[in-house]
Amino acid sequence: MTKLRVVLAPDSFKGSLSAEEVCAALARGLARAVPGVEVRARPMADGGEGTLDAVLAAVDASGRRAHVRVTGAGGEPIDAAYGVITRDDGVTAVLEAAQVVGITDPAGMSVPVAQRSTRGLGELVKHLLDAGIRRFMVGLGGSSTNDGGSGLLSALGVALIGDTGAPIAPAPNGLASLARITLIDLDPRLRACEFRIMSDVNNPLTGALGATAIFGPQKGVLPGEVEPFDRAIGRYAKLAQAAFGREVEDQPGAGAAGGLGFAFQLLGGTMQSGAEVVAELIGLPAAIDGADWVITGEGRSDRQTLLAKAPFVVARHAAVHGVPVTLVSGAIDPAALADLGRHFAGCFGLPNGPLSLAECIARASELLEARAEQLARVFLARQSGPGRSVE
Amino acid sequence: MTKLRVVLAPDSFKGSLSAEEVCAALARGLARAVPGVEVRARPMADGGEGTLDAVLAAVDASGRRAHVRVTGAGGEPIDAAYGVITRDDGVTAVLEAAQVVGITDPAGMSVPVAQRSTRGLGELVKHLLDAGIRRFMVGLGGSSTNDGGSGLLSALGVALIGDTGAPIAPAPNGLASLARITLIDLDPRLRACEFRIMSDVNNPLTGALGATAIFGPQKGVLPGEVEPFDRAIGRYAKLAQAAFGREVEDQPGAGAAGGLGFAFQLLGGTMQSGAEVVAELIGLPAAIDGADWVITGEGRSDRQTLLAKAPFVVARHAAVHGVPVTLVSGAIDPAALADLGRHFAGCFGLPNGPLSLAECIARASELLEARAEQLARVFLARQSGPGRSVE
Repeated sequence: MTKLRVVLAPDSFKGSLSAEEVCAALARGLARAVPGVEVRARPMADGGEGTLDAVLAAVDASGRRAHVRVTGAGGEPIDAAYGVITRDDGVTAVLEAAQVVGITDPAGMSVPVAQRSTRGLGELVKHLLDAGIRRFMVGLGGSSTNDGGSGLLSALGVALIGDTGAPIAPAPNGLASLARITLIDLDPRLRACEFRIMSDVNNPLTGALGATAIFGPQKGVLPGEVEPFDRAIGRYAKLAQAAFGREVEDQPGAGAAGGLGFAFQLLGGTMQSGAEVVAELIGLPAAIDGADWVITGEGRSDRQTLLAKAPFVVARHAAVHGVPVTLVSGAIDPAALADLGRHFAGCFGLPNGPLSLAECIARASELLEARAEQLARVFLARQSGPGRSVE
Repeated sequence: MTKLRVVLAPDSFKGSLSAEEVCAALARGLARAVPGVEVRARPMADGGEGTLDAVLAAVDASGRRAHVRVTGAGGEPIDAAYGVITRDDGVTAVLEAAQVVGITDPAGMSVPVAQRSTRGLGELVKHLLDAGIRRFMVGLGGSSTNDGGSGLLSALGVALIGDTGAPIAPAPNGLASLARITLIDLDPRLRACEFRIMSDVNNPLTGALGATAIFGPQKGVLPGEVEPFDRAIGRYAKLAQAAFGREVEDQPGAGAAGGLGFAFQLLGGTMQSGAEVVAELIGLPAAIDGADWVITGEGRSDRQTLLAKAPFVVARHAAVHGVPVTLVSGAIDPAALADLGRHFAGCFGLPNGPLSLAECIARASELLEARAEQLARVFLARQSGPGRSVE
């Protein structure tokens, strides 16, 4: 048998394993079933938490990780990580909104969402502007804020003036008394910047499908706050658009990350599928070219998976190269299995018998390892005869 | 692509689906992934409940099902099913001990195990002797009795005489006062009989690994009864062996079905792997010959599976023909997965995410169907490119 070449390109299993850990478990299982298997690990991400790790792991020596102290979502200082990639065609900074205003940051989450702001992300951009960087890739997933991106703009010199004539706090509470916006102090270096925004959210900024209505509740927006927050952000958006001379509030993704998608698009940023950008950055197409099999996965797969989540993006790349791709996730929503099945050479959840959610999460690594081993035996069975002969 | 030929040879998923129902669910799932797939359903059994159904389903017109009223384990009359197979080389009766003294019979189970007897099985044999039948295949699984087979022998003319000189009841309580055994009234037609006993139990009749110690508790033998029952059965065995002039109590399988394995061996019966005999009767080797893939399974697979349970027997036949065989069970014991994996081209439990045992059982059919579909996509992936191309 010629050597089997397998590409492992899972997203993280959120709350359980990083994408790197998923790759490691899958690789151990494959090696048990197929000694000498050639594994190419390409941990994926979707623009949210883990994106920076995935990109830096893939670009190797051309990338470095750095930290800078900026203001966290709740006002406390936070050491935010970012990446810098140096290539022949220039330098690119890789940012994760979640590094500054992450929904897993306890300090930020201890402050009401009405006061949380993205100003630290603007400080981070400013720091990089000072360093001469003009190209940015920004992952928007996993934010705790719902400020319409007003904090980001404020830190970059957009003046948000309240009823009293004084600057307002760039957060939902402050926006309620916003009166006008001026760009007199806007950082002039922004005009030379390119922002590629990584997100898998297509929602507009406001309204029934807007950031506050759809994503607000999971960040702590109370039922009674949805309408006033949405109205304040709507007025802020009108004023900001007038100042910038751009209409972007109904662009797809304006409602990503509590409106960061709106603010970055005001700055000329383009919205892209987070997983697509990551796939490109980590060289996924080249890894898949010539491979025999691709395995992808995520914590839980459902119909959302087919909306440009990492496993779906991996499946599309595999299809282009004519390589079969199998989905191994922590769990598969039974209602989505038929739809998912059309895009994968088999979709599999982890348990092998009755198991609680807590056990699935705690034992994810060993379950993944076992599943990969068993799937490899099936994958190889057709050409090599009974399972025992592959040993 | 040439037509895919798949043999489905699962055991039943006890407490959930019959082997026929498992085949039907697997076939539906396969057809979704591989339109035009050629499915050969060979529902398996291991000598216990379901054996009669599996054999009669497989032998088709040469077999017929009949009933006769005999004494149940607890003394109530019971209509016991049996099968008669007529072939060129003669007539064979197929019996299931569980049809007479089944552990799922509420009437039998309502009587203490101390009083339960296998005499009805002897009555069934006698009925068939009267019908001219001399060849028997007897499945021993799923019995509720622990009488050392004394009921069977008693009904066939073995006299069990107690301390008082009167016949004893052929059950654990009665055996306690057994004084002697004579064969004066033994049915002389038994000498011309051939008994093939189907069992996957290798235990001896008595002692620490004997029928009472190992299988008694699940039949209701109380902790304090194990020792006296075992002693009574041991003395009965010595007397019976002296009368028959045969030593069989330590033969493998003497302890099967509460000692029915002992009694049938006294009558000259040979112990065989239940699953092996069923595989032969249902023509499993011929079905596997020329197939591309075999799928087997059972309710729960663990290390016991490798002791000649149905899936293991199926795997051996598949290996002989060089056909890959995949295990799809309701659940797989994680501790046994590595060992099982050496014998199958992949071992898979049913759930695709967190799921309780009750849900696994209630939803077994849909889960099986989905699992078969997804596995077929992996099985076909290697030669046919990405999963979507197999549609």
